[in-house]
Amino acid sequence: MPQRVAVVGAGAVGGYFGMRLAEAGHDVRFLMRRDYEAVKAGGLHLSSHLGDMSLDSPTIERTPEALASHGPVDWVLVGLKATAIPDIPKLVGPLLSEGTRVLAIMNGLTVDDEIAAQLPEGTSLFGGLGFIGVIRGELGRILHQEFGAINLGHHGDDPDELQRGVDLFAGSKVEIRPEPSLLRARWEKLCWNIPFNGLCVIAGGVPVDQVIEEPPLYDAAYEIIREIVDAGNADLEAHGETVRIDGPRIANQFLTQTLGMGAYRPSTVIDYNEGRPLELEAIFRQPVQRASELGVGVPMMSMVASLVGKLGG
Amino acid sequence: MPQRVAVVGAGAVGGYFGMRLAEAGHDVRFLMRRDYEAVKAGGLHLSSHLGDMSLDSPTIERTPEALASHGPVDWVLVGLKATAIPDIPKLVGPLLSEGTRVLAIMNGLTVDDEIAAQLPEGTSLFGGLGFIGVIRGELGRILHQEFGAINLGHHGDDPDELQRGVDLFAGSKVEIRPEPSLLRARWEKLCWNIPFNGLCVIAGGVPVDQVIEEPPLYDAAYEIIREIVDAGNADLEAHGETVRIDGPRIANQFLTQTLGMGAYRPSTVIDYNEGRPLELEAIFRQPVQRASELGVGVPMMSMVASLVGKLGG
Repeated sequence: MPQRVAVVGAGAVGGYFGMRLAEAGHDVRFLMRRDYEAVKAGGLHLSSHLGDMSLDSPTIERTPEALASHGPVDWVLVGLKATAIPDIPKLVGPLLSEGTRVLAIMNGLTVDDEIAAQLPEGTSLFGGLGFIGVIRGELGRILHQEFGAINLGHHGDDPDELQRGVDLFAGSKVEIRPEPSLLRARWEKLCWNIPFNGLCVIAGGVPVDQVIEEPPLYDAAYEIIREIVDAGNADLEAHGETVRIDGPRIANQFLTQTLGMGAYRPSTVIDYNEGRPLELEAIFRQPVQRASELGVGVPMMSMVASLVGKLGG
Repeated sequence: MPQRVAVVGAGAVGGYFGMRLAEAGHDVRFLMRRDYEAVKAGGLHLSSHLGDMSLDSPTIERTPEALASHGPVDWVLVGLKATAIPDIPKLVGPLLSEGTRVLAIMNGLTVDDEIAAQLPEGTSLFGGLGFIGVIRGELGRILHQEFGAINLGHHGDDPDELQRGVDLFAGSKVEIRPEPSLLRARWEKLCWNIPFNGLCVIAGGVPVDQVIEEPPLYDAAYEIIREIVDAGNADLEAHGETVRIDGPRIANQFLTQTLGMGAYRPSTVIDYNEGRPLELEAIFRQPVQRASELGVGVPMMSMVASLVGKLGG
């Protein structure tokens, strides 16, 4: 059944997944700022190795109130940077009605708890971890460069709700990997983001091949992943969860995948090179803080967090 | 007995120690390029917490041949960057005569062997490790900011020769610490240079207080020192030397000293911030290479060397 979807934070990530939902037949509406005029005049365009597509005259508005005037939605897809979490009541609130679900595709360890605290009690919240290389091109254009999957979890780990999220993307070009534990999924994503977003920034804002193909940096990435696995598993235990991160599997998977990525630039590198604020809290400081609370030693991860903090502060 | 001293590489370090020798009564002559006109017109000036001084009309020349025309010298004090070692025959050669000794105050692990290979057989060569914060100011001006000692060794570890080097500085404001093993002294200096020159560059070209006062970076520095001590002691053993680096003592000494340095910028940071070539080989790559040859694992040091290489390459 086609769903009504509002996309808030229609940058590269939100825009991409919103377009793929529209392509699959859903009624997708976009909150736009920077690109509003261009999209109004010429439509929204996607260049992608999975197939180009365009929406010639999508429903777009400049304010959440205006977007809400198009009628209620079943889903709000949030593609904001973690630094914009305080704006969620203002940006998402007007779009919520009885039964509206929220899917936040954002980085961070505690981002789900933070968003939940900003939403009305009982809102069903999903966390999506985007494994995707996608950037904004010219106004109204999105350039999809790599991958395109979402590891999807439910805040509360309700399996029936999780299935609703999986169903939303059925028939779309988005690969959905359901995650029985959202907390584990978050830690697993950090196993990539901390070493690679971190070391690529520290090495001067370079793409991942400059890190993964240099043996001492490959070794450092491996060691950082090992520390994150330890911290993540301690956190899962502290939360009373029975699942664990399979450290050797995740390290092998991420290092191997990264070796195949070529000159891919992680999001933090793009932010760094363009002088934008870095997602320091979401990607670096929260996990270090949590490891400290858990009493897990994470010297490499802490060092990376400190260095990125110096560079992005 | 006053000595005749030629200073080659009269930048901040060479200029400073040359001026202190002149102040102590020696006949010091300077090879100058950038500052030649300014010094000819207005003299050479030193601002220092150990006492300001000036040389109103020092003997200066633009070429080693012109400097040699002032007569033979007992010592050549070499203050070049390690990157200038290939120029030593051209710059130092014309100044050498029977019995001339060479004191190179330069960074690096293999710098003494490299310089010795460029000098006539039998030249008595000394290695000086400057522990000093000194920079060039306006033309003809040197600004001495911190410390001012030389750890002095003899290439060959001849104790009688070493004493000659100590005697040269007797009565000057330069504190000389004789080193019975030049190789150990070099590794010990790297115990400061690698962590602090390295991390300060990696953190964006910051002064040492930004590193030493941030616990994860302090811990990283400690770990890097530990690795260097292991590699250095293996190198001493491989060279058949009986002396060893006292790891806990050197770590404690350097970390404590650095906590007192405030906003001091290591030489590599100054080079980095001014866009000059970094002493990658001398400070970072040679020790990593040597540790690898010795089979000593140095992951943190290797990571730092790789990152600085990315930033300075």
